[in-house]
Amino acid sequence: MVVDEKSWLMFKRRLWSRLWEDLEIGYLDKDLLPVLILFNLDRDVYTLSSCSGRIVVSDSVYPWSRDEGSIVLKTHVPVKPGELALLLKKPVVRRLWLNATGPIVHLSARNIRTATYLLKVARMSGYKHSGILSLNKYKGVIIELTTGVRFSTFIGDATNILETRDIGLLVEKANEILLYGKLMLNRLYEVASKYLPRSVDEEVLNDVRQREGLLKKKPIEIFAEMAREKGLGDFVDRIEKMTELR
Amino acid sequence: MVVDEKSWLMFKRRLWSRLWEDLEIGYLDKDLLPVLILFNLDRDVYTLSSCSGRIVVSDSVYPWSRDEGSIVLKTHVPVKPGELALLLKKPVVRRLWLNATGPIVHLSARNIRTATYLLKVARMSGYKHSGILSLNKYKGVIIELTTGVRFSTFIGDATNILETRDIGLLVEKANEILLYGKLMLNRLYEVASKYLPRSVDEEVLNDVRQREGLLKKKPIEIFAEMAREKGLGDFVDRIEKMTELR
Repeated sequence: MVVDEKSWLMFKRRLWSRLWEDLEIGYLDKDLLPVLILFNLDRDVYTLSSCSGRIVVSDSVYPWSRDEGSIVLKTHVPVKPGELALLLKKPVVRRLWLNATGPIVHLSARNIRTATYLLKVARMSGYKHSGILSLNKYKGVIIELTTGVRFSTFIGDATNILETRDIGLLVEKANEILLYGKLMLNRLYEVASKYLPRSVDEEVLNDVRQREGLLKKKPIEIFAEMAREKGLGDFVDRIEKMTELR
Repeated sequence: MVVDEKSWLMFKRRLWSRLWEDLEIGYLDKDLLPVLILFNLDRDVYTLSSCSGRIVVSDSVYPWSRDEGSIVLKTHVPVKPGELALLLKKPVVRRLWLNATGPIVHLSARNIRTATYLLKVARMSGYKHSGILSLNKYKGVIIELTTGVRFSTFIGDATNILETRDIGLLVEKANEILLYGKLMLNRLYEVASKYLPRSVDEEVLNDVRQREGLLKKKPIEIFAEMAREKGLGDFVDRIEKMTELR
């Protein structure tokens, strides 16, 4: 399969400008930004919808079901125990699941050679579950970079709710696993910075230069700011301790 | 990248004979067999190490960590509450996690065209998380077919163990999600049977014919037998009810 250059570049430019729109309206997980910029700086790569790692509470038949209105809480920073207690005051329709997932980054490469290069960089960053999702003549070679970082537990249904103490323990684990995912995101950024960009996309570089300071922060630093804004000081201290250890 | 035909076929023949060795020594999840045979019957495909879906209890830092001796229970059939109670009598070294995962099938395709065909079949079967893992001149285009079916919860550590009742609820959910995965495996078998083999590998076909009766059972029927052998009659009834519903 040969990718249509003109169409591929059109997609890159369109998604690049949408990225800034998403940031402005608050649709973008801010700690993802350094990673997205890094990949887009490569002439042969662009990014698609991605996630920096999150906690989701759903009221659904299964943890992965996404029926209408099934998500009752979605956050890219840790959950406070009180937040879950509040959710438990409302009646559960199906079943309540608490899920934490690591980062997922979607990329398009201009050709298979670039795609396999990106997969190698991903493996070096510990993203063992990465692969090529599809090959599209117009959109390019679509890749998913992902980790095994995941937690997914049952919390309660209409007849049975876990003990408050047990829920506390599970929320603690979900937060810890979220944090592990954020460290993995930071690792992807640091490792990929050594291998990318191979040849610079000047248009992207100019855009980035105009938005000063954007490349001064690492994903984990932005995450620490996000958590601090939510009043999760303890958590931030822990992050700083853990990142020192690395 | 062009795959070396001779080397690719050598890998196919070697892995095909290893599959039967694994079956004899009990290394192979029996309910996976119909799926493995189906894919290998195609001249342009062979299977690599795969899993029909399982429950794993690990004593590890994180649910996905695989340090030495971290797996304390691994089974391809449902868990009885008593089994977990027995594990909880021993001291926990790190942390105890209860994980259920859906099927994962690894395939090699002779070329990219076949790989994208397999990915389409996988998507039609609901295997949304499937992709090309790597391209290897000798081994072929390596693909992973996988679902989002997953459950992964904390059970206890050296200082805190969840309430017995809560553990019971979580084991129930793990079993249910295991079962969902088995239904997905069956679905892959049924959908893929319509699209494969495109051209038959005669050598594989001859082998299969000599082992009579192998293609008479669906994955879900074999799973029901496996569960019945373990004395999980209730579960089997439920399977039969659920499969009727489909």
